[in-house]
Amino acid sequence: MLEKNILRTELSELGEFPLIERLTRDIVCRNPSTLKGIGDDAAILAYGENAVIITKDLLIENVHFDLSYVPLKHLGYKAAIVNFSDIAAMNGLPGQMVVGLGVSNRFSVEALEEIYQGLKLACKVYGVDFIGGDTVSSRSGLVISVTVIGEAPLDRIVYRGTANTNDLLAVTGDLGAAYAGLLMLEREKQVYLSDPKMQPDLEGHDYIIGRQLKPEARTDVVKLLLEKEIKPTSMIDISDGLASEIIHICKASGAGCNLYENKIPIDPSTINAAHEFNISPVTFALNGGEDYELLFTVSQSDFPKIKELTGVSIIGHITGKGEGMNLITSSGSQVPLTAQGWDAFLKSGQNQNESGK
Amino acid sequence: MLEKNILRTELSELGEFPLIERLTRDIVCRNPSTLKGIGDDAAILAYGENAVIITKDLLIENVHFDLSYVPLKHLGYKAAIVNFSDIAAMNGLPGQMVVGLGVSNRFSVEALEEIYQGLKLACKVYGVDFIGGDTVSSRSGLVISVTVIGEAPLDRIVYRGTANTNDLLAVTGDLGAAYAGLLMLEREKQVYLSDPKMQPDLEGHDYIIGRQLKPEARTDVVKLLLEKEIKPTSMIDISDGLASEIIHICKASGAGCNLYENKIPIDPSTINAAHEFNISPVTFALNGGEDYELLFTVSQSDFPKIKELTGVSIIGHITGKGEGMNLITSSGSQVPLTAQGWDAFLKSGQNQNESGK
Repeated sequence: MLEKNILRTELSELGEFPLIERLTRDIVCRNPSTLKGIGDDAAILAYGENAVIITKDLLIENVHFDLSYVPLKHLGYKAAIVNFSDIAAMNGLPGQMVVGLGVSNRFSVEALEEIYQGLKLACKVYGVDFIGGDTVSSRSGLVISVTVIGEAPLDRIVYRGTANTNDLLAVTGDLGAAYAGLLMLEREKQVYLSDPKMQPDLEGHDYIIGRQLKPEARTDVVKLLLEKEIKPTSMIDISDGLASEIIHICKASGAGCNLYENKIPIDPSTINAAHEFNISPVTFALNGGEDYELLFTVSQSDFPKIKELTGVSIIGHITGKGEGMNLITSSGSQVPLTAQGWDAFLKSGQNQNESGK
Repeated sequence: MLEKNILRTELSELGEFPLIERLTRDIVCRNPSTLKGIGDDAAILAYGENAVIITKDLLIENVHFDLSYVPLKHLGYKAAIVNFSDIAAMNGLPGQMVVGLGVSNRFSVEALEEIYQGLKLACKVYGVDFIGGDTVSSRSGLVISVTVIGEAPLDRIVYRGTANTNDLLAVTGDLGAAYAGLLMLEREKQVYLSDPKMQPDLEGHDYIIGRQLKPEARTDVVKLLLEKEIKPTSMIDISDGLASEIIHICKASGAGCNLYENKIPIDPSTINAAHEFNISPVTFALNGGEDYELLFTVSQSDFPKIKELTGVSIIGHITGKGEGMNLITSSGSQVPLTAQGWDAFLKSGQNQNESGK
């Protein structure tokens, strides 16, 4: 009657990516409609000329979010957005959403309505249909499972493993703000816990807190790329920090890269917050995560089109694999790019800042 | 910093179906590819001549399963099957699966591999591609979220709300066995808890325990119906007990029904178990749940074809709404059909026997 456990390898011994590799290595896809299975931001199915894009995220209370400072409506909104962002990362647009909620009786009907309001608002803003819900009982804590279905013409789909040498490396928006916002919220939580009469001091930090609590998915960029007739050679969304995502693109493409520190777009509010915490703003951008911006590569021949786009920064280029993945610092020195990516199990005793991707 | 809670309605005040109704009543679908949203076994998207069917289930430890008697591999298998069954209920075949797992460090890598083995086995048996996985940390207990994508030609899709007066009511296989198996496992668990030296006495109960731990989805029936050129007028899968599912069909179709007690197919092993528990076997079939058989209606003109099918029983017929939903007992008396359906919140202190549909 007990769990079978002859050999026992702790999850912390493996880490997230090796674990996924071990669990999924023997999986083979055989159905004609399956174009791409495990290994990108989302899976791709093909029906005639249409690509159907499927993505899923599981969010668990006190691992992926902390209700002491995340309002329920924001939580619902963000749970939808992180999935819309995965669809955008395939160069598609989200079309439908299915949500599973696990809730304990600590939550009231009104609390669930708040979560649903956030989910519905995200659907309204992004033109997505909410097509299914499954609400079940949970013994402890809140569990949110969101599946989003997107669409794109088959020939517009962009994977992460198709970057070429000399391609330009581009990123949308600015980076590091969501992580700065998280640190700020965590700091004020600690102040509150030590003295509940203290009021949170979040003044002047609206932008970074907004980026943490109410992120957006860059479906506008997907539309803009189509309009300007630009097809990226590879693309990924930034959920785990810029460094981790660049490494994903390079490894999957069998390539190297040069990333220029002084080209990384960082908002002044993020820089201010970084100084308050005595951390380099570039560290926020490289390792912070949850920006949900798009990182993509384009052929050099698209440079004239790309440089005209507002809110897109060129931050480096793809090199041969032998040249390695490098950060060129502001002082001109070259250091190997390393990811301090999110790891579900090594840090499972702490609060996580990144989504379970 | 606290959850907003001016008005507080307990989840137990509403119950499952009214809660879903309240959360989803204002949802409208607008995208051209959305054919059917909330309200059936699965959602339907249309791409050209193809219908894409989406279903999702969230399973939570100690709510939907009890690891003290459910082996992890069986759990993985069943988590896939319950979703395949939802696809079959739309008259489609499952094609792809995406899985999210939330696990605490109580689980080893080998334990996760067991769950994956069950998931992969189900995929192999049913010809489904495993196209995505998301494994995240959980603070307490195991959470399994499965999304399955199915396919069917658009004109083969069958909904639950389209039964017509005089249609025949048919069911596949036999009913009540999974619930009998659950009661047996629960009984032996109590014996074990009171005296761990006692060995479980499950002899002679292989069939009912198999039906509980390793159910199958009736995709074979979907194929058979296509081969025999039968298209049901409505269909649903039996996850919550025959009574609850018939009521779903009748309410959604604006119809009544007569269900004949002596026509309900029940296996002799289920009857034996029912006698051991001093419960009527018909109660198991009507209210037990988790059989994952298909309940469907067909036009009377299809009677010659239907009666030739092995393993399909005709158990009644659809009537006008005004005639009500009735059980015609073996003694010939007519009693109103009532559902003692699964309710996540009213019974949240107990172990559930039905899936969260």
